[in-house]
Amino acid sequence: MASLSYLACSTIRCSATNNGSEPNKMGLNSIKVNGTSSFAAVNGVTTTSVAAVENVYVAKPQIRQNIPTQKQLVDPFRQGLMILDGVGYRQTVVIRSYEVGPDKTATIESILNLLQETALNHVWMSGLLGDGFGATHGMMKNNLIWVVSRMQLLVDHYPIWGEVMEIDTWVGASGKNGMRRDWLLRSQATGLVFARATSTWVMMNKQTRRLSKMPDEVKAELSPWFIDKEAIQSESLEKIEKLDNSAKYMNSDLKPKRSDLDMNQHVNNVKYVRWMVETIPDKFLENHQLASIILEYRRECGSSDLVQSLCEPNEGVTKIEHHDSTKISSLLNGFSLAPGAPESHGLLELLHPGPVSYTHLLKIKGQTKNEEIVRGRTTWKRKIVSIPFPTDIN
Amino acid sequence: MASLSYLACSTIRCSATNNGSEPNKMGLNSIKVNGTSSFAAVNGVTTTSVAAVENVYVAKPQIRQNIPTQKQLVDPFRQGLMILDGVGYRQTVVIRSYEVGPDKTATIESILNLLQETALNHVWMSGLLGDGFGATHGMMKNNLIWVVSRMQLLVDHYPIWGEVMEIDTWVGASGKNGMRRDWLLRSQATGLVFARATSTWVMMNKQTRRLSKMPDEVKAELSPWFIDKEAIQSESLEKIEKLDNSAKYMNSDLKPKRSDLDMNQHVNNVKYVRWMVETIPDKFLENHQLASIILEYRRECGSSDLVQSLCEPNEGVTKIEHHDSTKISSLLNGFSLAPGAPESHGLLELLHPGPVSYTHLLKIKGQTKNEEIVRGRTTWKRKIVSIPFPTDIN
Repeated sequence: MASLSYLACSTIRCSATNNGSEPNKMGLNSIKVNGTSSFAAVNGVTTTSVAAVENVYVAKPQIRQNIPTQKQLVDPFRQGLMILDGVGYRQTVVIRSYEVGPDKTATIESILNLLQETALNHVWMSGLLGDGFGATHGMMKNNLIWVVSRMQLLVDHYPIWGEVMEIDTWVGASGKNGMRRDWLLRSQATGLVFARATSTWVMMNKQTRRLSKMPDEVKAELSPWFIDKEAIQSESLEKIEKLDNSAKYMNSDLKPKRSDLDMNQHVNNVKYVRWMVETIPDKFLENHQLASIILEYRRECGSSDLVQSLCEPNEGVTKIEHHDSTKISSLLNGFSLAPGAPESHGLLELLHPGPVSYTHLLKIKGQTKNEEIVRGRTTWKRKIVSIPFPTDIN
Repeated sequence: MASLSYLACSTIRCSATNNGSEPNKMGLNSIKVNGTSSFAAVNGVTTTSVAAVENVYVAKPQIRQNIPTQKQLVDPFRQGLMILDGVGYRQTVVIRSYEVGPDKTATIESILNLLQETALNHVWMSGLLGDGFGATHGMMKNNLIWVVSRMQLLVDHYPIWGEVMEIDTWVGASGKNGMRRDWLLRSQATGLVFARATSTWVMMNKQTRRLSKMPDEVKAELSPWFIDKEAIQSESLEKIEKLDNSAKYMNSDLKPKRSDLDMNQHVNNVKYVRWMVETIPDKFLENHQLASIILEYRRECGSSDLVQSLCEPNEGVTKIEHHDSTKISSLLNGFSLAPGAPESHGLLELLHPGPVSYTHLLKIKGQTKNEEIVRGRTTWKRKIVSIPFPTDIN
């Protein structure tokens, strides 16, 4: 069999820049590593054992990750930069082909993934990152990890495949011992805000799994980053009632798979949302798009837990009634409604027949105490393919 | 309720550059759009209907995607550039937090997703892209789509969270009517090749679903991009036998979910691989890492198909025997083996107890003719946490 030898080096950069040259060409020869020893590795489908031996030559994780120990203002690889006087973070992302669903718009899972990613990159850039899930050096010293207690996401528009987006994120205080993290997702081309999100986080002792106060050492690390700016007005907080087994829809025996676990060995958040949404009937999902989701976390879910997903439609009352009717009228100003088209509230109802929101519960199966993993509420809007519009503003 | 008004404009860029300013600040006021009409949109969890009305103000997909109609040499957003005398494509990517598994290394699904993404971005940059899945303008005119017939991926090292990688991809002729696409995945910092992949593609008529010759018009579009360069030596081609129901492991009643469909309304490739891998016993997966995968595609899988995943371990014979024993010896040169450690072939066997490869079949349940979706072969290496190494080359 023909083989391709290459250099398994870790400290030599064969090509340092994106200049269109071929970095691996140099790697096609077997050369000395640091002048100490010479070795070649054969490569191909049949050399799996050889690859295993090679593994030891890949650089240490610390060098490969290169987590900054001091605050960085820009990161060209992450396309990130510090904003808001140096305490907030902005990252430019292109919506990838596998992040969109059959309708070519980003899935809710992709959006949640991008929020997680930008949050962690914010900590990464801050110089505070101590481990994989956003814990600071002070938190690691005190054996503390972050636990999310609440998350709210509002999506006005879904990004499409290839669209360039900007995601801003920043943090603030939440009570004495918690942290708030907010996000804005915006079109890079137009500045239009597509989505906004907020979340609250508390600290948990990694061993005892009990919630912890924020130690002064950690407060000193974090508080310089806190600002008083909210992506979502706090008035929109509302209590989510607990569902019981009389809920209209239920999926049982949901079992986390290996691929559902994140680097904390926990079921990933995104999987929770998928379990929730998949409990809603397909017929509804075909014509609706998620407009908002609120998640209230109650306990951790491990890899061996069997999960039940309960879901109850909240029929009828759309929350639009809370709004100032003048604002709705002003929204409709300038629209050329078709002759006979209903006005204002009537039009909005026409756009929203059927349930507009669902209440959700994920719980551990077979437990009666402390069984709640997460409560949720989702609101939905009908998919509008295309409404002809008199003045095309594009 | 407090509300946040903002401008739902699509043509005005509130902030054009990543200068750390606040693009959405300007958007917090209601201002004239193109001088023709003024409107404000109320925002918050309770305004889903309002958001639906707003939708019409988001720019057209063509403008939001901004697919180039001429060849581009660089794309700052995708961090891509043309290489190999302008016919190949390189993209820099950072491995994201949600692309890694519990061991903090990129999952095989993430790697396959990144290959798909860079392939499509290559076509995107070429100016040839006619629709979402890589079809050229000429293909669209002839009602043709791409169908993958074979894919092979070899992974020597798995990237870890936060690691910066470069992915190169290019295309070549495959027979008269097909195309080969290859990839190299490389550490940006060291140039070390982590993975290589190759694939072959043919054209299918979108309506008749029959394979098609490559029309001259399409050949004229594509052939200037073809080069004769292979990421994997073609000698490694080997036939994969068809499994029957006597296979050792079987998962039945696999049903595609909404979230498994890609923008072509088909079950995504990555889902195939997940179905295959999940059929292998957990106990094996815990200690092994995928070293290579070959996929031979036979037919499409739609959203209503019930799928069976069959899997058979290929016990015993490791393919290392095919190798030139001098190469293996030279690989081991310079290693300080522990006293009494077995040499060469013996060491390799020590690293590989049990099966090293599996044969796979995904098929449509309940059909006896034309039921094969994809045949596969996976090879595996034992996970090596850390082997103490006399000379730390980092």
